[in-house]
Amino acid sequence: MFTCTGYASTSAEAPLSPFTFQRRDPGPSDIEIEILYCGVCHSDLHTARNEWGGTLYPCVPGHEIVGRVTRVGAEVSAFKAGDLAGVGCMVASCRECDSCKEGLEQYCVPGFTGTYNGPEPQTGGHTFGGYSSHIVVDGHFVLRIPENLDLAAVAPLLCAGITTYSPLRHWGVKAGQKVGVVGLGGLGHMGVKLAHAMGAHVVLFTTSPGKEADARRLGASEVVISKDPDAMAAQGETFDFILDTVAADHDINAYLGLLKREGTLVQVGAPEKPLSVNVFSVIWRRRNFAGSLIGGIAETQEMLDFCAAHGITSDIEIIPIDQIETAYGRMLKSDVKYRFVIDMASLPKAA
Amino acid sequence: MFTCTGYASTSAEAPLSPFTFQRRDPGPSDIEIEILYCGVCHSDLHTARNEWGGTLYPCVPGHEIVGRVTRVGAEVSAFKAGDLAGVGCMVASCRECDSCKEGLEQYCVPGFTGTYNGPEPQTGGHTFGGYSSHIVVDGHFVLRIPENLDLAAVAPLLCAGITTYSPLRHWGVKAGQKVGVVGLGGLGHMGVKLAHAMGAHVVLFTTSPGKEADARRLGASEVVISKDPDAMAAQGETFDFILDTVAADHDINAYLGLLKREGTLVQVGAPEKPLSVNVFSVIWRRRNFAGSLIGGIAETQEMLDFCAAHGITSDIEIIPIDQIETAYGRMLKSDVKYRFVIDMASLPKAA
Repeated sequence: MFTCTGYASTSAEAPLSPFTFQRRDPGPSDIEIEILYCGVCHSDLHTARNEWGGTLYPCVPGHEIVGRVTRVGAEVSAFKAGDLAGVGCMVASCRECDSCKEGLEQYCVPGFTGTYNGPEPQTGGHTFGGYSSHIVVDGHFVLRIPENLDLAAVAPLLCAGITTYSPLRHWGVKAGQKVGVVGLGGLGHMGVKLAHAMGAHVVLFTTSPGKEADARRLGASEVVISKDPDAMAAQGETFDFILDTVAADHDINAYLGLLKREGTLVQVGAPEKPLSVNVFSVIWRRRNFAGSLIGGIAETQEMLDFCAAHGITSDIEIIPIDQIETAYGRMLKSDVKYRFVIDMASLPKAA
Repeated sequence: MFTCTGYASTSAEAPLSPFTFQRRDPGPSDIEIEILYCGVCHSDLHTARNEWGGTLYPCVPGHEIVGRVTRVGAEVSAFKAGDLAGVGCMVASCRECDSCKEGLEQYCVPGFTGTYNGPEPQTGGHTFGGYSSHIVVDGHFVLRIPENLDLAAVAPLLCAGITTYSPLRHWGVKAGQKVGVVGLGGLGHMGVKLAHAMGAHVVLFTTSPGKEADARRLGASEVVISKDPDAMAAQGETFDFILDTVAADHDINAYLGLLKREGTLVQVGAPEKPLSVNVFSVIWRRRNFAGSLIGGIAETQEMLDFCAAHGITSDIEIIPIDQIETAYGRMLKSDVKYRFVIDMASLPKAA
């Protein structure tokens, strides 16, 4: 075991604060990474504050991790000390079920181990995430990070990037198709960039007229203000695919009606309350309402390589870690363009 | 024009009663059919009573029609007088849009013409359905009826049969797959028969323990009482495909959770109120919630031929037409095994 520093919440009500803890030394298949940047995902906040229940305290959030390898286990050949490396939402899975064998560890039947708040059999404790100085992860779950991209802006690709890339690929989005992206936040702005890079004609749906110029800059060919019924009606039955990134309650039928026959709307935002689906929305044109959860490790690497080839990163705002609660507050007001990333150089040294 | 007899409702409140009316003489591409049997679909009742709005009175319902050809237009070569013939839910479509060209007239972009309550440009009036002595339909929309099946029991195949057959085929249900059918009514009992004939392992979900023996007789290998949480839990994540035929509000998430990764639940029952979909139900295993509407003409013919090859018809209860309101009342209580079919020999002669 070795000593790490980080930031943790100690209860649902306690703000995140400096925390010193022990991590396991790297085993034969493990990689130890010194964390340089960690993106701030909405899930971090939900978990820190126990909004989904089941949070194990102390809780060190963070699953958009980039850094540099410091030690590797004897069996590790893919990485060596000094390499850039990334870790996303998963640090383990059963590796034996059909999903794992197909490279879809996110759908591991017994369940994957989250980068934070998951069980850690090596220590008997729970996993601590990326708001920390180092992390130790089985090499299978460590990603190669392209050298040609801004490192801080790569961090959010590990969750926001793969969460939007995976459904675009799984449902076969390709050049010439018309793709809608609903919502322009951390997920949505990646959806626009990625779908545009795949050659799709991208239409961004937003409730905020002020986001139009930015959406176009990010790659949208059209911007529709979803509160404008005429503008929505003009898009009726024209979409091959819609990626819905909205995590608040909203009228999903308004978007299902924009799909062509057999089109698919994939929900990646996760509203707490169920969505009301008018069955005629799907019956009428044999439409499909689906969901998608992050992506597998191989696909995450593919996404990073795709981003390297297309020069894609997240639009970010870098913060020191002592500003994390302020960042959470702004994130709740959607006041971020479009992802906060913590500079880990700002971590206080161990007490 | 020629005189037909039938049964019609004259307002949302008026019971169906004898009605004498004119139909067009067959044009060059038309076929005139003497109707022998007409199935009774829930849509008939909804339309007769204007429960969906937009009903044009007088309203002659009925879109599960079988009979014998009496006259054909000059351009018709596929049928001759004396042939058995069937008509389902559609009597016209634009024939020019992509959906029509692909044989998916049910998804005609400008909209198909319903067998009843649709526009009829030839007369300037609206279409009258199968609760009548004769019907005149463009030959493209007339189906060949197998000679080896009980004619009355074939009638419901034209709506209930194709509505369940089409999604089973479109989503590729095949031998060895595990298929759920939710609800054992007019649609559900056809879904069980057809999925079983396709070689699937069929599990019937019902709220009624009394339906178990019947479900097994129809082809279900297992019957699950959906109100039993343990029985439901035991089926978790095991289904390739689920066909949901329930037209009342129900907990769709309980069924989505039974699908394997990437499984699809298709709604063919049409509850009036939106269904509440917990997005985690679809996100968690990349599941699909889709809809399906009847089927195209070519696929309807394929379904009839499939039924002929497998000896499949609907389980029916034959009624004289003066019992139609009683039948509606029993249908509303699900007191029918499993479809009423009107014997048109019971029609009163023209006044």
